[in-house]
Formats: sequence, structure tokens, C-alpha cells
Amino acid sequence: MSNGAYDKLEAHWRRLSHLSDAIGALHWDQSVMMPPGGAAARAEQIATLSVLSHELMVDPKVGDFLSEAETETVEDVWQAANLSEMRRRWVHATAVPGDLVEAMSRAGSHCETIWRDARPNSDFPLVLPALAEVLALTRNIAQAKAEALDCSEYDALLDAYEPGGRSDSIDGIFDDYARFLPDFLDNVLTRQGETPAPVAPSGPFSAESQRALCRRMSETIGFDFDAGRLDESLHPFSTGIPEDSRITTRYDEDDYSFALMGVLHETGHAMYERGRPEAWRNQPVGDARGMTLHESQSLIVEMQACRSRVFHEWAAPVQRDAFGGSGTAWDADNLYRRAIRVERDFIRVDADEVTYPAHVILRYRLERAMLAGDLPLRDLPGAWKDGMHTLLNITPPDDRRGCLQDIHWYDGAWGYFPTYTLGAMAAAQFFETATARNPDILDGLTRGDFTPLMTWLRENVHAQASLMSTDAIIEQATGRPLDDTSFKRHLRARYLSS
Amino acid sequence: MSNGAYDKLEAHWRRLSHLSDAIGALHWDQSVMMPPGGAAARAEQIATLSVLSHELMVDPKVGDFLSEAETETVEDVWQAANLSEMRRRWVHATAVPGDLVEAMSRAGSHCETIWRDARPNSDFPLVLPALAEVLALTRNIAQAKAEALDCSEYDALLDAYEPGGRSDSIDGIFDDYARFLPDFLDNVLTRQGETPAPVAPSGPFSAESQRALCRRMSETIGFDFDAGRLDESLHPFSTGIPEDSRITTRYDEDDYSFALMGVLHETGHAMYERGRPEAWRNQPVGDARGMTLHESQSLIVEMQACRSRVFHEWAAPVQRDAFGGSGTAWDADNLYRRAIRVERDFIRVDADEVTYPAHVILRYRLERAMLAGDLPLRDLPGAWKDGMHTLLNITPPDDRRGCLQDIHWYDGAWGYFPTYTLGAMAAAQFFETATARNPDILDGLTRGDFTPLMTWLRENVHAQASLMSTDAIIEQATGRPLDDTSFKRHLRARYLSS
Repeated sequence: MSNGAYDKLEAHWRRLSHLSDAIGALHWDQSVMMPPGGAAARAEQIATLSVLSHELMVDPKVGDFLSEAETETVEDVWQAANLSEMRRRWVHATAVPGDLVEAMSRAGSHCETIWRDARPNSDFPLVLPALAEVLALTRNIAQAKAEALDCSEYDALLDAYEPGGRSDSIDGIFDDYARFLPDFLDNVLTRQGETPAPVAPSGPFSAESQRALCRRMSETIGFDFDAGRLDESLHPFSTGIPEDSRITTRYDEDDYSFALMGVLHETGHAMYERGRPEAWRNQPVGDARGMTLHESQSLIVEMQACRSRVFHEWAAPVQRDAFGGSGTAWDADNLYRRAIRVERDFIRVDADEVTYPAHVILRYRLERAMLAGDLPLRDLPGAWKDGMHTLLNITPPDDRRGCLQDIHWYDGAWGYFPTYTLGAMAAAQFFETATARNPDILDGLTRGDFTPLMTWLRENVHAQASLMSTDAIIEQATGRPLDDTSFKRHLRARYLSS
Repeated sequence: MSNGAYDKLEAHWRRLSHLSDAIGALHWDQSVMMPPGGAAARAEQIATLSVLSHELMVDPKVGDFLSEAETETVEDVWQAANLSEMRRRWVHATAVPGDLVEAMSRAGSHCETIWRDARPNSDFPLVLPALAEVLALTRNIAQAKAEALDCSEYDALLDAYEPGGRSDSIDGIFDDYARFLPDFLDNVLTRQGETPAPVAPSGPFSAESQRALCRRMSETIGFDFDAGRLDESLHPFSTGIPEDSRITTRYDEDDYSFALMGVLHETGHAMYERGRPEAWRNQPVGDARGMTLHESQSLIVEMQACRSRVFHEWAAPVQRDAFGGSGTAWDADNLYRRAIRVERDFIRVDADEVTYPAHVILRYRLERAMLAGDLPLRDLPGAWKDGMHTLLNITPPDDRRGCLQDIHWYDGAWGYFPTYTLGAMAAAQFFETATARNPDILDGLTRGDFTPLMTWLRENVHAQASLMSTDAIIEQATGRPLDDTSFKRHLRARYLSS
């Protein structure tokens, strides 16, 4: 290939990528460094860069270049994939009229503001009108994108987070897990109740010691502090670019596990970004594939590797020494049992890996029903409670701990939720395959050596970037498309067999 | 006014301003937070935003809007000034062809890289060819801008840093000071030698204590930490926006005065930015006037106020307590005498306020001669040594401590140097006028109360933004144009009269 049109598209997307990276850096600063006085001006800076980026994206000449490049013979598979990924992004950007994008952005900000008041007071009616506006605009966007992408409206929203993701296949996986969960959860809780609860190491744990521990653990996984930073923010997150990863956490002096687990999780995200192919930096095909694979990489580190029994052989004394602790609370077995504690809980972000999918499946089913018009918004609180009862056998006493707990719908993020659980299942499928093919991976974890695991992930996931679809990457790496069988085997092994 | 064209120009410059603020934030992060791995990508992000900004600036429709807006009747003086400042910036941006801008940028980066090797080895011949390239391109730019601005070539370069600045008036001021300095300096050093040298408080001074002291002093001046941050970087600097000032310093555990003076200086810059009129945010007329006034605001804080004898009444015990010190080294008089120590030195950035102008005058004369072709580059080292001998009666033993010490020429910043000393003189003129008109200002400093001084500066300098020329702002505030009489009076009073 490498014709004039294609080269122009690469140059164009390089510029878009720099803009997007700049926006990312401004967001990081906003969450980690910025004093409160800077908020309004920062919002304007980011809005201006976003508008410039959108204007560049929908420039009519881009459509012409795409059509021209697509008539050429494609020889390099990366270039071909790059071109089709450019087309996909262009379709997303041009499908929705500018005034609808702007209306959605305003409605989301407005609704989010009201939600911040409604949540602590469990006042769903307060936010209902604003949420109705968000839903109406979301539906308009979904319709416009569905036409452009030739898929269902829900799938058109999902596609923005999980390119190529389709609800047909999600339904099968989620329905299966929803059938599996109730009995399995009963068994896990029964079994868990047969032994005394693990003991909490006693604090306080100074932020300084936690920071040093988190840094060491992150480096152990492979994080390179010459190409990244660890800072503090209200909620842990990861952002940045491969050569400059920015991860954050938050330190609770009573319990260091929150900070540590956050760092392990965000390190997994950062390692994915770090492993993207250097030759395709700043091009669509060189980007991470989507949220499912991204979440799989954070969860394979946090849930599969770092909460494993074998890893605790190495990690328990490291944690003990980090705080100068002593006693049986620091035994590998005790810390392991703390790391895999299961509980029925109303709150998604506090959930363990067994019950977490129930939270996601509920949201996925509800957002599809609301989008389709099958669930009137005023019935959401009741439907939420019913769903929680069916899936987890608990009923939230109020909407604060029910349909008001997450920001997603209120700020306009519809179609995002399923990727959390698809990621957890993909993590299990990758880990099962990887450890079966290379015994050094588990041996390594016992010694705090992540090289074998990371080598496998880099080759099979990170370096694939967006060359193929999520499904194709998973199938090429594990021999079959994504399903929940590895995940269920992992849960049975971890929670019922040991 | 407020016709269609003018409104479009305001919208256009708002966008340019957000872009420029975003670039500032990325630079701050680069100097203060960024891990080394991020350097290459950050350079590309900033280059992309700079190119976008330049493209927006030279958009032909901006020229049309300017012409159209200029035909309208102007009623509001701020709008009128805004429009003429827009025109000035547009002339700067459009005067130079894009390929020349790019060639200059590359030549500057290339030469700076070589300079970083040449300086420690005192190897001027190594950097000579690259500097010749920089000078040739600088001359081309100066020619293009001189034509567009209808001024001399040197003044066209100066105008980018000091709008409306003209070498005719600088010559008069600098020549006068150059005549004044040699005898005055002899007298100061003789007088200084008549009393024992001040005693250095003994350290070490922990970075933590220094940070707390610097924070307290900065707050005392008026810095608001809800609208700003103090961090660390290799060289102190200030950047950011009025609502989010970012200042930096560096902590030397053997001598806290370097960090403290840096913070006082940068706080002065930040206060200027903070005092810009809110109604004109993100418009050219609302920006700081130029580098002369900017430097005057850092130096009025650092040199005029904070190194004064009266301020040490309050500041000496604060410094002593910050480090738990005791003894006569912490007496106000001793610390004051340390703060105003004068010395003949080869290095500009280490110079005291008496000798600093000599460093600047030398550079100003040399850069004009080089630009005019009157001084061949190969003769620069000798001319430097001769000039230092004439002005300060010392001769640098090598080029590392001579013409290789500053980055400015090598990275392409020609026409910048004079603003340092013009700022010092403006600071003296402002301070003399302000303290004469309002006795509360000196009384305030004795108690660590900067409100009277800052109120005067805000009204007479900060809030004027770019409504008038630098000269007009100085004349309106002090009753006469800038000269060196206040500065000389200040020096005589501080160094010979007490």
C-alpha cells in the first residue's frame, strides 16, 4: 500500500493521537495535581482540545482519503487493519450530528451534577428528569450509530467501548453465569463459613510505607518508574502513554489492601499499554483493542496472579516486612484467605470476583431494557431491587445502595458495563491457557517473578494491539472464543477445591 | 463595537488561549512530574499543539476579520486595545514563512544539544557552526518581522518579548548605568569590606522544613494555594494561569536561601498573573504586558521588598523558627546583610542586583553587534572577555564562565536579555513611587503584611494587563517613563547609606 492517501491518513491520525494524549495528560493533572481553582479553566482547555480533535476527525477530506486508500491493494496486514480501524473511528465520529454530541455532553454534565446530590439522599425522583433527557439523547445517538455501523442500537453503543462487541454473544455468556451463580455462591459461602475468618493485620499502616510497598509490588510486576509514575487520587485509575504510564491509588491507614489491590490492578492496565507495538505508536491499529481486553489485563494481574495462593508465598513476607509486622496475621495462608473473601454486597466496586458479575449482568440487562423502551425509567429502582434479589438473593434497602450507586448512566456512559465481566472471564481464559502451556508462570509467581507471565501476555495480547478483533485475539491465544468456562473452573478451584 | 467580525476574533483568540494554556500545562508536567521515558512523546504532543495553534493563527480568515473589525467604530478602550493586540500577534505570526519557523525550531534544538556538550568543556568552536546557523535564521526572521512591524531588525526580535520595546531608549538607559557602575561598584565593595562578613546560619536545612518555610512566605506575599502549587524542578520557574499558578524551586540542604529567593521571585511573577483582569481572561488584552513588567513584578517582591531591611524584622525570626535555629546568625541584621551581599562574578544567574545589569548590558550589546554583522561569531569569546573586563573589571578564565554560560542564544532566543534589567529598573521605579505615596507599604513589610504593596501593584500594574504599552503603564503609575534613576537611588540607599 503506502499510497498518498494512506500516508496522509497516517499523518492525520498521528496528530489526532497527540491531541488525545495531551487531553489525557490534562485529565491526569486535573485528578492528581490541580488545585481547586483551576477547575473551570481546565474544563475549557479540555473542551477546546476535544472540539479541535472532533473537527479534525470529521474533516470531509478524511472521508475522501479513506475511500481512496480503500481502493488500493493492501499488502501489509497492519496497514490494512489500521485503515479499517480508521474507518471505524471515522464512522463513529461522523455518524452523530455535532449538535447532538454537544447536547449529550451538556445533558450528561447536568445529570451528573444532580446525581451527586441525589445519591447520598437516595433520591431517585430528583434525578429522574435529567436521566430521562440523557436516555433520550443516548437513544438518538444509538439510532444514528446503529444505522452507520449496521448493527443494533445497543451494540452501536457497546461498539464505542468494545469494538465489534455484540449482545448476542454476551447474552449467552451472561445467562450461563447467572444460572451458575446462585448455587455456587451458596456453596462458597457455606464452605467459607466452615473455617474461622482470616485475621486482619493490625495497623495503622503509614501512607509512606504503603507507597513503598505499592511501588515495589508494581515494579515486581514489571512497571518501569523511568517510564511511569504512581500518585494519589480519589479513585484509582491509570492513564498516560506506553512510555509514560500514570497510575494512581489512595491510602487508607487502617487497611493497606485497598491501595495495594488498586495498584496491582492499575499496573495490569499499564502493562498492556506498555506492551503495545512500538512500530504502530500513534496509529489506531497500535492502540489497545478495547475495554474487555484492557480489563482482562488488569484482572489477570490483580485477580488471577496476585490473589493466587502461590503468589502469597512471596508476597506475604514482603507485605509483613513493609510494615514491620509480626504474628500469624501475616502468614501467607491468612493473607490469601483475606484476599479471596466472598460476600453478598450491594455495592459493585466493593464486590469480590464471584459476585461482581452479578452486578454487571444486572446493569447490562437493565440498560438494554431501558434503551429499548421496555423498562420505563420510573420503574428502574424496583427492577434493580428485583434483579439483585434474583441474582444475589439480597435486596438493597435504598437506591443509594441500588440504582444510584454508579455514575455511568447518569453521565451518559451506556454500553460500558459488560466489559468489566467480559474482562474477568477473558482474564481467566488467558491465565488458564498460559499456565497450562508454561509451568514457569506459576513457578515464577511463587518467587515474585512475573517475567514468564508478562512475556506470554505481551506476545499474545499486548503486542497484538488492534490488529484483530477482541474475539480473534482471544481465540488465537487460547484456542477458542471467549466463554465463561475457564472463569467457572477458576472459581471452583479457588473457592471449593482447596 | 461588538460587530460580527470582532466577536469572531474574540472566539478565535479564546480558543488560541486555551491551546496555549494547555501547552503550558504540558510544559509544567514535563519539567516537574514527567518520568524520563515520556520526553520524546511529550515533545511531539507539544509540537502538534503548537502547529495547530500556528495554523489557527495564520488562518487567512483571521486577516479578513481583523480588517473588517478595524473599520468599525471603537467605543470600549479594552476592546480597541484587544483588537490592536490581536493585529500585533497576527503580524508576528504571519510575517515569517512556515518553513523558516520550522527551520529555526530545528536549528535551535540542534544547537542547544551541541551547546550542552560544549559548555562543560569550554569548547566554543564545537558549537560555532550550529550557532552560525541559528544566527543566520534569526537574521532572516528579524528581517521578515522588521518589514512587517516597520522597525529595526533587533527591535523586531525584542518586540516578541517586550511589545513596543525599542533599542533607542534601551541604549540610553543601559549606557547611563554602564557609566555609573564601575565607580559605584568599587565604593560598594570597599564599604562592604569595612565590616566583617555576615555569618551563614548552619545547616543542614531539610527539604521538608524549607518547603514549609517557602510555602509560608509565598502565602504571606499573597499566593493562594487553592489556586496554585509549589513544586520542585531543576531550575525555578513559574507558569500556569491566574486561577492555577504553578511555581517551582529547588532545595539545597546546605543553604536554604537559594530555594527561598527562588520562591519569592516566582511568587512575584505569579501575583502578576493572578492580578490580571478577570473580564479579559483568554483575550490578548488581558494577558501580561511583556517580559519587562513581568520581571519587574518578580523583582519588586524578591529584590525590593523581601531583601529590604524592614522586611527582615519580620522574616528573620520566621526563618529561624522554620529550622529551629538559634544564635546571632539568625539576627535580622545578619540575614539582611547576607541577602544583599555584592560580589564580582562571572555568572549571571548567581549575580547580585548591583552587578546583574552589567551581565545583561554586555549580552545586549553583543547580540546587537552579532545580528548586525558587526561582530563575527568567531570573535565572540574575545569580545565577551573584553566586555566583562570593561564593565566589571574581571576576565572569565574560560568560555564556560563566559559566552557559553547561558542557553539563550544557542536555542534561538535573541532579543530577550534586556528585559531582565529593564524589569529590575521598573521594579525600583514602582517601589519608590508606591512607598512614597503609601507609607503603609513599608510599615506592612515590617509586619509581614504585603496587602498594601500588592493592592498598589494590582491596581497600577497587574490589572492594566495589556491595555497600554509598557511605557504608558510605567508612566501612568510613576509619573515618568522608565529610566534608571530610581534604581540608582535604590542602590545608593541600600549599599552606601545605611
